[in-house]
Amino acid sequence: MRTVDKGSIHPRSQRRMMQVFDGAALGPPPIWLMRQAGRYLPEYREVRAKAGSFLNLCYNPAMAAEVTLQPIRRYGFDAAILFSDILVVPDALGQNVRFVEGEGPRLDPIRDAAGLANLSLRKATTKFDTVAETVQRLRQGLPGETALIGFCGAPWTVATYMVGGQGSSDQAAARGLAYRDPTLFQSLMDLLVDASVDYLGRQARAGADLLQIFDSWAGSLPDDEFETWVVAPTRRIVAQMKAQFPDLPIIGFPRGSGPLAFNYVQETGVDAVGCDTAMPLELIRSSLSGKTVVQGNLDPLLLVAGGDRMRRRIDTLLATLAANPYIFNLGHGIVPETPPEHVAELVRHVRSYGRA
Amino acid sequence: MRTVDKGSIHPRSQRRMMQVFDGAALGPPPIWLMRQAGRYLPEYREVRAKAGSFLNLCYNPAMAAEVTLQPIRRYGFDAAILFSDILVVPDALGQNVRFVEGEGPRLDPIRDAAGLANLSLRKATTKFDTVAETVQRLRQGLPGETALIGFCGAPWTVATYMVGGQGSSDQAAARGLAYRDPTLFQSLMDLLVDASVDYLGRQARAGADLLQIFDSWAGSLPDDEFETWVVAPTRRIVAQMKAQFPDLPIIGFPRGSGPLAFNYVQETGVDAVGCDTAMPLELIRSSLSGKTVVQGNLDPLLLVAGGDRMRRRIDTLLATLAANPYIFNLGHGIVPETPPEHVAELVRHVRSYGRA
Repeated sequence: MRTVDKGSIHPRSQRRMMQVFDGAALGPPPIWLMRQAGRYLPEYREVRAKAGSFLNLCYNPAMAAEVTLQPIRRYGFDAAILFSDILVVPDALGQNVRFVEGEGPRLDPIRDAAGLANLSLRKATTKFDTVAETVQRLRQGLPGETALIGFCGAPWTVATYMVGGQGSSDQAAARGLAYRDPTLFQSLMDLLVDASVDYLGRQARAGADLLQIFDSWAGSLPDDEFETWVVAPTRRIVAQMKAQFPDLPIIGFPRGSGPLAFNYVQETGVDAVGCDTAMPLELIRSSLSGKTVVQGNLDPLLLVAGGDRMRRRIDTLLATLAANPYIFNLGHGIVPETPPEHVAELVRHVRSYGRA
Repeated sequence: MRTVDKGSIHPRSQRRMMQVFDGAALGPPPIWLMRQAGRYLPEYREVRAKAGSFLNLCYNPAMAAEVTLQPIRRYGFDAAILFSDILVVPDALGQNVRFVEGEGPRLDPIRDAAGLANLSLRKATTKFDTVAETVQRLRQGLPGETALIGFCGAPWTVATYMVGGQGSSDQAAARGLAYRDPTLFQSLMDLLVDASVDYLGRQARAGADLLQIFDSWAGSLPDDEFETWVVAPTRRIVAQMKAQFPDLPIIGFPRGSGPLAFNYVQETGVDAVGCDTAMPLELIRSSLSGKTVVQGNLDPLLLVAGGDRMRRRIDTLLATLAANPYIFNLGHGIVPETPPEHVAELVRHVRSYGRA
C-alpha cells in the first residue's frame, strides 16, 4: 500500500516503523519515546543554553534539527519526532506566547471576539515555513531507516492554553468559555483546524513520514463536550490531511480519554492511537489492539526508576500488545530527571523481544 | 435493613438520602453537591474572613458547623457534608500544612523514612476529636430529614500532597517515590489507612450517617499501580469500617478512574461510587448503574454557565440514571465563580423530576 515515496531520498517502506501501518505486527515492535529530545540529555541542554528563548530553539532549523537528531544518534530509535512545541501554532497566529523558566508557558489569554480577531493564519506562514525547513533538514540528515514524525497539538488542547493563558490541571478557563460562548469557542476551533491543516501540510510536503496529533487535555471533558471539541475538530483535520496526503499515517493521542478512545479512533479516522499511562492494559487489549495501531504506554516515571520493575512492565506490555500492530512508547513524555542510561536499557530490553 | 439508629436523635430511615442504600430508586433522586459549602456563598466568605487561617476554620466546631449548615438553609439539600479538608489528616499526624491564599496547600514534603518517622497517629487524636465535635454539633443542628456525610481523603490522594508538598497535575513526586521506594511508600499508606479508619470512626460515632472517601487523583496511575495504591488501601479502610459500623454506607470517589471504576467498586466493597465529570454516561449506564449506587456527574462549569444547556444535561443524567439507585451530584466540586442562583435553579430542576 505505502511503497516508494518519490518525494524523499529513501523509500518509506524501508523504514521499519511504517510497516505497522500496513498491518504488520513486528517483533520487536518499532520504538520511539515522546519527548525523546529534551532536557534529560546533556547534549540537548548544551544546545538549549545557546538558543536563548525556548521558542528561538523551535524556530532555528539548524538547532531544532540538531536536538531532534541527538536521541537518534544515542539510541537508534525507529522514529525521530520534529523538535517543536504545540504552542508554535498560537505564537505563529499572532498570540503572545513566552516560556517562563521553571513555570511553563504563559500566553496573553484569548477571552473574547476582539482577542480572537487579532489572530490570523496569514501571519503564521513565515513561522510555519521555518518549522518546515527543520523537517526538510531532518529528512536529509536522518538515516534511511528512521521515520520522521511531524506533529501539532489538537485544537482542544491548544485552545486550553490560548484561553487559560497557561497550563492548568482542570482546563477550567477553556471549558468555561466553551459553555458560556460556544459560538466564539467554535470560531477559535475553526481557526485552529485551518491552522493545523496548513501547518501539518507544510510538514508533510517537507518530508514528514507520518504525523501525531497531541490532545493532552482530552480527558477533562464530559462525553458530549468530548464529541464536540475533541472528536469533531480532529476528524476535520484528519479528513483534510487524508484528502491531500492519502498515504500519510496519522497517530491520534487523546490523553486521558479512557473508554472514549475507541470512539475517538472510529470517528476521527486516525490510523493509530497513542495510549496514555493510565489507560488500562485490559481496555487497550479488548477495545483497541488489533482494531487499530496501538502506541504506548509505559509510565515515564517507571523509566526514571528503571531496573527490574521497569523490565517486568515492558514484558507485560509486549506480551499483551505486540502480537498486533504496535509501536512501543511511553504513556506520556520523558521527564527531565530520567537517567539517559535507563533509556538505553529500555531500548535494549524492548529490542530483545522476539529475538532468540 | 437500615431502620432506627438509636444513637442519634432522628431515625436514619427518615432521611431520604439513606433509602438509595436500601436499593430504592427515588424520583426525584436525593441531591447534594460536592463543595456545597464554600466560597461561592457570601455567607461562607463572611465566616471565612473571621476564621483566620483556613485550617482554623476546619478546627473550629462552631464555625465549621455553621458553614456546613449554610447551603442546607439555602437549598435544602438531602445531605450535608462536614466542612473540613482532606489535608486535616496529615496536619493532625504532625506534618506542617498551610494554605496559601490563591495558591492552594503547601506542605513540608515527606521524602524519606526520617520524614515519615515524625508523623504519628497518637499526635492526631486531639485534632480528630475537634472535627468529631463539629459532626456532633451538626447532628444536633441539622433537620431530621437531612443526612450527614463524613469524609476523608483516600490514602493515595492524601499521599500525593504529603510527598509532593503541593498539588500537581501529574502527581509525579508520589508516583516517583512509589516506584523508587515501594517499601517506604507502603509504610506511608499503612499509616494513612490507620489514620483514616481512626478519623472516620470518630466521625461515625459522632453521628455521621454515611461517609465518602475522596480519591481525587486516582486517575493518574497505570492499572497495576491503581490496584496497589488506590484499590488495596481503600479496601482495607472499608473492611475495617464495616467491621465496626456494618450499617454505615460508604461512597467511594475514585476520580478519573474511568473503566477501572467498576473494578474499584467490586474490589473495595464501597456501597456507592461517585462518578467524575469525564466519566462517560454510557459507561456509567452499562457498568455501574443498577449494580451499585451511582452518584454524579454534572460538570461544575456547566453549573457556572447555567441556563438551558445545564437543564438539558440534567435531563439526560436523570433519564439515564434515575431509574436505578442514584444520588444527584456534580462530577467535581462547585467552583468559586458559581452564581448561587444557578444552584437554586439546579435544585429546582432536579426536584421537578418524577413529579407531575
